[in-house]
Amino acid sequence: LTTGRELRGVAVAGLPEIGEGDRLGELIAACCRPGEGDVLVISHKAVSKAEGRLVELASVQPRAEARRLASEQGRDPAMVELVLAESAELLRAERGVLICRTHHGFVCANAGVDCSNVPAGTAALLPRDPDASARRIRSELAKVAQTRPGVVIADSFGRAWRLGQSEVAIGCAGLLAIDDWRGREDAGGRELAATEVAIADEAAAAADLVRSKTSGEPAVLLSGLERFVQSDDGAGAAALLRPVSEDLFR
Amino acid sequence: LTTGRELRGVAVAGLPEIGEGDRLGELIAACCRPGEGDVLVISHKAVSKAEGRLVELASVQPRAEARRLASEQGRDPAMVELVLAESAELLRAERGVLICRTHHGFVCANAGVDCSNVPAGTAALLPRDPDASARRIRSELAKVAQTRPGVVIADSFGRAWRLGQSEVAIGCAGLLAIDDWRGREDAGGRELAATEVAIADEAAAAADLVRSKTSGEPAVLLSGLERFVQSDDGAGAAALLRPVSEDLFR
Repeated sequence: LTTGRELRGVAVAGLPEIGEGDRLGELIAACCRPGEGDVLVISHKAVSKAEGRLVELASVQPRAEARRLASEQGRDPAMVELVLAESAELLRAERGVLICRTHHGFVCANAGVDCSNVPAGTAALLPRDPDASARRIRSELAKVAQTRPGVVIADSFGRAWRLGQSEVAIGCAGLLAIDDWRGREDAGGRELAATEVAIADEAAAAADLVRSKTSGEPAVLLSGLERFVQSDDGAGAAALLRPVSEDLFR
Repeated sequence: LTTGRELRGVAVAGLPEIGEGDRLGELIAACCRPGEGDVLVISHKAVSKAEGRLVELASVQPRAEARRLASEQGRDPAMVELVLAESAELLRAERGVLICRTHHGFVCANAGVDCSNVPAGTAALLPRDPDASARRIRSELAKVAQTRPGVVIADSFGRAWRLGQSEVAIGCAGLLAIDDWRGREDAGGRELAATEVAIADEAAAAADLVRSKTSGEPAVLLSGLERFVQSDDGAGAAALLRPVSEDLFR
């Protein structure tokens, strides 16, 4: 016995290795047939590759601040230089861990700069504007597939008080990022006090359960989220950023 | 074109309203047929109700500290008394928000004390030992259903730097809470530096996408996670707690 509502997630198979200049939306539409109301969750690494956001570490000239911090934290100076360049603010530097607020406003380790699943000697930076990337991919998908699924761009973030990483949405288009239940009533007719569900983050997390870190499957198709998919691109994952003025843990 | 791997989530329908003393595992097994390798994600509220963790606010005697804090933060003194009693430590009290470390070690708002979806005038406390609750529910399920699915007990947590809440695992049994990729290699044969995937939290988040906050559906059945389901109950969600000594944001 189950309700009619069902969530389904499958990895999109058959995508080629992504390179600079690739139109990800077109490549994905050639490999799957997203239905109206589906959501495509794409690993940010694929987006960064398509957007040419890979940097050769040997080409990086670390400034004095990066060299000092790298030495203090036991890190590679070129990597630290990239992290600082991507950061609006360095929040913590301890035990080799750099927690940053990126120029986009994300608080995460290493400002999202990452050396996994990229060619040796290179590092991937986050897309410059992941919401714009999601909108562009959605529009490419719409052209080829004749449908406008929601698009989420996902990255793995650690958590301040929990071990392990969970995928979150760093960009999205056409998916309600937050489902706001405030002011609505619970099953007993009492007002729900503070219930804003981070739908886009939960979609990113669900998609991560389908992929493997080494499977080379950067895209996952989720169905069952029709009620959160919108024809307009919406406010994107920027809606998930807590304003700095409300940060209790600076 | 998709891979064989697929995640599926459906809400378990037909559960009665849960009351103190109910055996949740038996009730759930009467409403669905979990397969080997499935995972049941259960809202903590149902577990708290079954375990008699509802408190009548009128019966609470707020101590001086609770009265002072309630007045300062514009909160109900009885509610604040419960929050303090559930807390090992009050980390922040600002703008009416109380961020606590619970006796279990969870860092969350209001120490998990919650007045939604419970009878008027009452508050639900978190289960005393959610990992033990998960183990007990799993064993009840095994008796009736003759299978041993993984069990996750989920609650909605806010995030320090992101808006909206996401469900996380506060208890689990038979599911690998963290999938540790450290030391393994990425698709290009490079070592993955810091990849520990919080599987139990991602499962809780995925399940939340199936339910509605007012649907009265406290249990969701996930399939497709066989590779993380284990016959022994394992370390539980306690494995997801970052030790206080490693907390960079105290």
